[in-house]
Amino acid sequence: MEFRTERDTLGEMKVPADKYWGAQTQRSKENFQIGTEKMPIEVTYAFAHLKKAAAIANSQLGKLPEEKKGVIVGACDEIIAGKWDEHFPLVVWQTGSGTQSNMNVNEVVARRGNELAGKEGLIHPNDDVNMSQSSNDTFPTAMHIAAYTEVEKLLKPALVQFKQTLEQKEKEYMDLIKIGRTHLQDATPLTLGQEISGWRMMIQRSSEMIEQSKQYMLSLAIGGTAVGTGINADPQFGDKVAEQLHKQTGYAFYSSPNKFHALTSHDELLYFHGALKALAADVMKIANDVRWLASGPRSGIGEISIPANEPGSSIMPGKVNPTQSEAITMVAVQVFGNDAAIGFAASQGNFELNVFKPVIIYNVLQSVRLLADGIRSFDEKCAAGLEANREVIQQLMERSLMLVTALNPHIGYEKAAEIAKLAHNKGLTLKEAAIETGYLTAEQYDEWIDPAKMVNL
Amino acid sequence: MEFRTERDTLGEMKVPADKYWGAQTQRSKENFQIGTEKMPIEVTYAFAHLKKAAAIANSQLGKLPEEKKGVIVGACDEIIAGKWDEHFPLVVWQTGSGTQSNMNVNEVVARRGNELAGKEGLIHPNDDVNMSQSSNDTFPTAMHIAAYTEVEKLLKPALVQFKQTLEQKEKEYMDLIKIGRTHLQDATPLTLGQEISGWRMMIQRSSEMIEQSKQYMLSLAIGGTAVGTGINADPQFGDKVAEQLHKQTGYAFYSSPNKFHALTSHDELLYFHGALKALAADVMKIANDVRWLASGPRSGIGEISIPANEPGSSIMPGKVNPTQSEAITMVAVQVFGNDAAIGFAASQGNFELNVFKPVIIYNVLQSVRLLADGIRSFDEKCAAGLEANREVIQQLMERSLMLVTALNPHIGYEKAAEIAKLAHNKGLTLKEAAIETGYLTAEQYDEWIDPAKMVNL
Amino acid sequence: MEFRTERDTLGEMKVPADKYWGAQTQRSKENFQIGTEKMPIEVTYAFAHLKKAAAIANSQLGKLPEEKKGVIVGACDEIIAGKWDEHFPLVVWQTGSGTQSNMNVNEVVARRGNELAGKEGLIHPNDDVNMSQSSNDTFPTAMHIAAYTEVEKLLKPALVQFKQTLEQKEKEYMDLIKIGRTHLQDATPLTLGQEISGWRMMIQRSSEMIEQSKQYMLSLAIGGTAVGTGINADPQFGDKVAEQLHKQTGYAFYSSPNKFHALTSHDELLYFHGALKALAADVMKIANDVRWLASGPRSGIGEISIPANEPGSSIMPGKVNPTQSEAITMVAVQVFGNDAAIGFAASQGNFELNVFKPVIIYNVLQSVRLLADGIRSFDEKCAAGLEANREVIQQLMERSLMLVTALNPHIGYEKAAEIAKLAHNKGLTLKEAAIETGYLTAEQYDEWIDPAKMVNL
Amino acid sequence: MEFRTERDTLGEMKVPADKYWGAQTQRSKENFQIGTEKMPIEVTYAFAHLKKAAAIANSQLGKLPEEKKGVIVGACDEIIAGKWDEHFPLVVWQTGSGTQSNMNVNEVVARRGNELAGKEGLIHPNDDVNMSQSSNDTFPTAMHIAAYTEVEKLLKPALVQFKQTLEQKEKEYMDLIKIGRTHLQDATPLTLGQEISGWRMMIQRSSEMIEQSKQYMLSLAIGGTAVGTGINADPQFGDKVAEQLHKQTGYAFYSSPNKFHALTSHDELLYFHGALKALAADVMKIANDVRWLASGPRSGIGEISIPANEPGSSIMPGKVNPTQSEAITMVAVQVFGNDAAIGFAASQGNFELNVFKPVIIYNVLQSVRLLADGIRSFDEKCAAGLEANREVIQQLMERSLMLVTALNPHIGYEKAAEIAKLAHNKGLTLKEAAIETGYLTAEQYDEWIDPAKMVNL
Repeated sequence: MEFRTERDTLGEMKVPADKYWGAQTQRSKENFQIGTEKMPIEVTYAFAHLKKAAAIANSQLGKLPEEKKGVIVGACDEIIAGKWDEHFPLVVWQTGSGTQSNMNVNEVVARRGNELAGKEGLIHPNDDVNMSQSSNDTFPTAMHIAAYTEVEKLLKPALVQFKQTLEQKEKEYMDLIKIGRTHLQDATPLTLGQEISGWRMMIQRSSEMIEQSKQYMLSLAIGGTAVGTGINADPQFGDKVAEQLHKQTGYAFYSSPNKFHALTSHDELLYFHGALKALAADVMKIANDVRWLASGPRSGIGEISIPANEPGSSIMPGKVNPTQSEAITMVAVQVFGNDAAIGFAASQGNFELNVFKPVIIYNVLQSVRLLADGIRSFDEKCAAGLEANREVIQQLMERSLMLVTALNPHIGYEKAAEIAKLAHNKGLTLKEAAIETGYLTAEQYDEWIDPAKMVNL
Repeated sequence: MEFRTERDTLGEMKVPADKYWGAQTQRSKENFQIGTEKMPIEVTYAFAHLKKAAAIANSQLGKLPEEKKGVIVGACDEIIAGKWDEHFPLVVWQTGSGTQSNMNVNEVVARRGNELAGKEGLIHPNDDVNMSQSSNDTFPTAMHIAAYTEVEKLLKPALVQFKQTLEQKEKEYMDLIKIGRTHLQDATPLTLGQEISGWRMMIQRSSEMIEQSKQYMLSLAIGGTAVGTGINADPQFGDKVAEQLHKQTGYAFYSSPNKFHALTSHDELLYFHGALKALAADVMKIANDVRWLASGPRSGIGEISIPANEPGSSIMPGKVNPTQSEAITMVAVQVFGNDAAIGFAASQGNFELNVFKPVIIYNVLQSVRLLADGIRSFDEKCAAGLEANREVIQQLMERSLMLVTALNPHIGYEKAAEIAKLAHNKGLTLKEAAIETGYLTAEQYDEWIDPAKMVNL
Repeated sequence: MEFRTERDTLGEMKVPADKYWGAQTQRSKENFQIGTEKMPIEVTYAFAHLKKAAAIANSQLGKLPEEKKGVIVGACDEIIAGKWDEHFPLVVWQTGSGTQSNMNVNEVVARRGNELAGKEGLIHPNDDVNMSQSSNDTFPTAMHIAAYTEVEKLLKPALVQFKQTLEQKEKEYMDLIKIGRTHLQDATPLTLGQEISGWRMMIQRSSEMIEQSKQYMLSLAIGGTAVGTGINADPQFGDKVAEQLHKQTGYAFYSSPNKFHALTSHDELLYFHGALKALAADVMKIANDVRWLASGPRSGIGEISIPANEPGSSIMPGKVNPTQSEAITMVAVQVFGNDAAIGFAASQGNFELNVFKPVIIYNVLQSVRLLADGIRSFDEKCAAGLEANREVIQQLMERSLMLVTALNPHIGYEKAAEIAKLAHNKGLTLKEAAIETGYLTAEQYDEWIDPAKMVNL
Repeated sequence: MEFRTERDTLGEMKVPADKYWGAQTQRSKENFQIGTEKMPIEVTYAFAHLKKAAAIANSQLGKLPEEKKGVIVGACDEIIAGKWDEHFPLVVWQTGSGTQSNMNVNEVVARRGNELAGKEGLIHPNDDVNMSQSSNDTFPTAMHIAAYTEVEKLLKPALVQFKQTLEQKEKEYMDLIKIGRTHLQDATPLTLGQEISGWRMMIQRSSEMIEQSKQYMLSLAIGGTAVGTGINADPQFGDKVAEQLHKQTGYAFYSSPNKFHALTSHDELLYFHGALKALAADVMKIANDVRWLASGPRSGIGEISIPANEPGSSIMPGKVNPTQSEAITMVAVQVFGNDAAIGFAASQGNFELNVFKPVIIYNVLQSVRLLADGIRSFDEKCAAGLEANREVIQQLMERSLMLVTALNPHIGYEKAAEIAKLAHNKGLTLKEAAIETGYLTAEQYDEWIDPAKMVNL
């Protein structure tokens, strides 16, 4: 490998000759040989958007010459296009303000910019690319941009698609009466469509929560610079950058009204992740219901069938497992773990800065991606192919003793309970037991016990 | 102790003669001798509101005679007034649907109602008090009512009061320039008022989140009965009860549009608790800042003083400790633990019911109360008495090398860094070092390095 | 209410005349009106043991006169006997070192001691009862004593009893062949006894973990006083107290070899609680298995029956629910939340002290008690009454296609898979399908497919 | 890209021609397009060890011909050597039993084995490589092997190295007296060496916990096959494989005495991770102490200096930050999050199998690696270069009022408190205040207040 020599304020560093990064990135690479988790590339893209917007804002404010602006914008556009991904080698476990990832972007933009301009030394990583900025305001800005963008690009479409599938199934099975189950015990009937409508509502509710809490991501720290006072930045800088970012992305970013808060509290990301956690809880519940309803095929509940996507067992031939449920419930568990990590990290700010930023955004973006991918996968490979086993459903429903509940308004809770127990203890049908007690006639039974009426469609 | 004999569908039970509860409550008391955590009394009050509203709705729907309604309403009003607290003896660790706490209320209302009416047997716990209801829809309804009410009564006032104190301190110290600190290291200056404004904004933001997420508590499960279909209840029942609850409490409760969701998912409470967790993270950060700024008194940072509320040490005479910070950070830690428990519980619904309801509401209400009490206590016993130590603040600010940051726009980042290092290594003042490098004159230094300009008020 | 006037180093306080506590306790009561969670009484008992042992050690070291020692021991014995519980009114949410609970004990022991001796002013709370001690070393000592004692008194017997029940059931059903289930799907058979043996092993394993990690509780901070150096205490004090505590309790306490660690790290309690968490995970799994196996009674799996302890539903007559499973799984969820709180708290020590002690011990003791009570309740009210439904078990086992696995060694995985699929698709029995493929004869089928051989007893 | 056609029991699949994997791996790749987290390569290596040991055991038991055994062993050795890493493309979010990763190994071993043997079709992935095994017993076996191995290879050496550094610093500064701090407030003195000894003890204690809990990893599920009964495996198979693994790795693996437990409970991994969490809590505390003691350089505590490894700020020139503390505290936070995920996952077993295995091992291995790398990095880049600032330490110690504690045994707690308060309120030195009160003479002061005696070396 060939190297070139770069320097920063601490001295010289050898840097791989074919990489755009500079001394500070290299120093970080060597000082933080921890784990394999790279700073998510979405943070880099957000940074490139930000550096571009900052150059334009600085130019508007008369601080950055037109030529430099153009060159910086050009380099940023290339990064956004995914052209230089391998020039961002740093790990999550670095300085807690993300300083080195900010510097990585500054260095790559400067070097690639100079290359584009054909002028060595035209752009300086700190003085030009980082002009009017600090890691302390750019990194949290990039966190918000990245999180918001990933929700829009990945999670929202997945939720919309899944909700549509559920709506379709809800409609398809709205009339199919089945036994309800509470406490895992037979209860009064409902339709399969009604049951699925509960799942649909979960996705709807948690989607609303995500939409609502996501709005806090639009508030940006940019303009606060080092400690929130905006030292070395024009007072208009934050607003201009946010406005420009709005133009670039279509998302209505704005400059946070209190930069001290924006640098040292991550209550907004934490609250937002709380909505992801609510979604994870719902997703776990839905995936569990699906696999339990599909349990069997012969010795379980077996009320529905789901697609057989792969051989299920390396030893049991012909076994088919609810693997999409398993993948998405593991995702849910991971989101719960991430929430614990993010909450802890968000509480640990001191004075003007919270220095747990990389670990926070790493976990937030992992949650967004895993939920998005996991839900899409579950939707396409499982939910869309879900089918009712009408015969089983019919059998299990008819057997149930809890149809007795419909007798409460007619004979009271206690006599109804007596009937149910008699049936259970003697192995009778409900009707047989009802008549045996003498509390009602066969005709009354047939009139009062009608599952179709009990579901209140 | 004297006993009377009561019976339920499983047989007879001996019940303390001086208690209103009946056989089912007694059975639960004996079957669940687990821990010391009682079902929160706020859940009982919420239940009493609900049973009252249900009686009125049933009466409006022509199902419950006027006399019975009046008696039920009377008994409920007494419970709400706190007259019968000791008649609700059950613990949290019972049936996961809270069935026995529902029955406890049914039994007390019935017995006390009969006593009020002077007619033994007039009111039946199941057939009258529980008319058109199931534990499965009443318990989650009571959970939402209790959580919403406690926020309104306890947490909201505490947050308003704390925010006012912070605003007052923010104003008082808006001009007092001090050193900023990032990474715990000296950074560029800001004013103490600005620093406090960050805390104020944290309370403001998390209050907004609580307000926003709290709205989901207004959605009530009532009307869903056993499995969400509303079996044995009039289709209008849910709406009528919610309307009546609105009248009784002043809070705009409404009947949930999907009862299947309302019985088996607790995404709403989980999301709401996420806002409490964001508040807890902010509170931990503020309380930490306060105790660090007050550290010393002679060998710490010592920029502020806080009230000396009690002797600090049983062995070190005269020691005063930041005890309100300690209490509230312990509260924060508890809220984080509660969030983990609630999230886990909320994910474990099966089919038509989630049976982790008592543990969820126990943790939610504990968080609300602890945050409310803790914040009020911190506000009154600590924040309100916080005072700046102007002399210390002045000294520490003047010493700092990070004022050098103001030179970036004039001489560039790298030369400025050189000056800071020279000062650090030789123990010089920043001005001495600046002049020694020759990059600027003493006059330029005095013009450019002006902390008052650096805070951008 | 009548009051008397007491004073501490901050001045005078009015104290209820009928209570033994003094000025510092009263001050804490007024300064920390937070929540309803009292400092667990077990901590007070541990403190009383400690104060007694300290008085004896101080006497042995010639620092405390015989008369004072006798009086202190007498007062402590009364506290241990539960005579003065209501004289310890403080909440968990106080100073993070538990200073005020230490002072509460000092004050009660002093006042009650003086009363016993009939000499006002004989015993001073700080100078005599707290002699050679600080809250900083006594509170963590009391934490360890209380945790260890509660495990011995509550948790260990509950685990032993539950394991015995499982062993008995394991033996009873060792020959009862049933279908196995993996991924909730029918798998190869095992016996019900084997299935239960897995549960038994879980209790055994997590009991071992508790035994192992519990040992760290024997290490005591006492002797470290204010910061770990043991200032104002004799160097032998720690050892002598530990030795005396060993005598008093029968548990082999010893003085920690590094007091700096003992005051500021709670790795030992955290690690110990990790074993409780492992137990909670196992308990949740067992309780879930039980309720799923008992699901039905007619439309679920229904392989076992569990006792019907109470009416299950306020609306569905005759319904019986797995309520003990529900209580214990809620307990498990709470233990998981507690673990999150304890871990967070344990990480927040600064310099010579961790000031999250009360919240740590509150959660540890809650976990111990809830697990102990919950397991005992589950054992007595559910596990002990568990019975196999032999007919259902037989039916479900015979139906399963996964008996095909036994053919792998004879005809290979792929052909066996073909048979299983054929049976599934055409609704055949496994034997019919096997013969239809021609891969084996009816005789071979009967020889090779023998569930009794497949369970490898 | 070129493809070849492969088939499994569900039909044909196109597989990249240059990859060894087969149809089932390919199917999983397509069915689980979720996230970017690959199954950790350490699991693959553990699997290769296991497949090798299984082949040898099967050969010893007369079930696998010598030729096949040799070929399988050869292919496994290549995988262990890291030669085929890119042939294991699957993600964590797959079937919860890890079936597809087991099949991935089976397929690669078979294909590479056939290539080595020069005989297409000699080795069958299921019938030969997976002989006597199931995913259900091999995957948990690989989990234990991988976790144990990573502790031995990565974490243990890092802990040993860090403890040595701390011991060296402890020795170096054993006599350097400094102010102690409790509640962040000045307390009685100790030496810097004593303070560091507390850190050393934390590493020692948590290392012991890791050693202790790690032993449970030696217990292997192998031999249980599909449901724990060991169907299709020789009863000796588990023991033979464990023995062979012991030979291969040097670690004393043994066959678990209860395979039902081993497949469906992960209490052992959860308990083990509890020890990692205790370490994480300690590491967070140590790293926090280091950064606070190094805070400043001019306006903080500044008692120690740590190495300046990189420019600290993109805007504040010359700033140096405690970045290694920041990296390792972010690691600690991640470990706490991982613990929450693992605990949740471990509780979710059903019947004969826990299907959250991949997410458990992913989090366990991440914790081990991050702690190992992070501690090594912190040790080398920070702790090893830690130096006391003797002048600052001297100044801060002398100023403190808490030296007054040494007067307790001479004049009592209350008078000592009076002196401290007088000094604080009037800004006196402690000696001045002591004399002013008249409670002691200047000579007595000099005799009794001697920091060197107060540290009890």
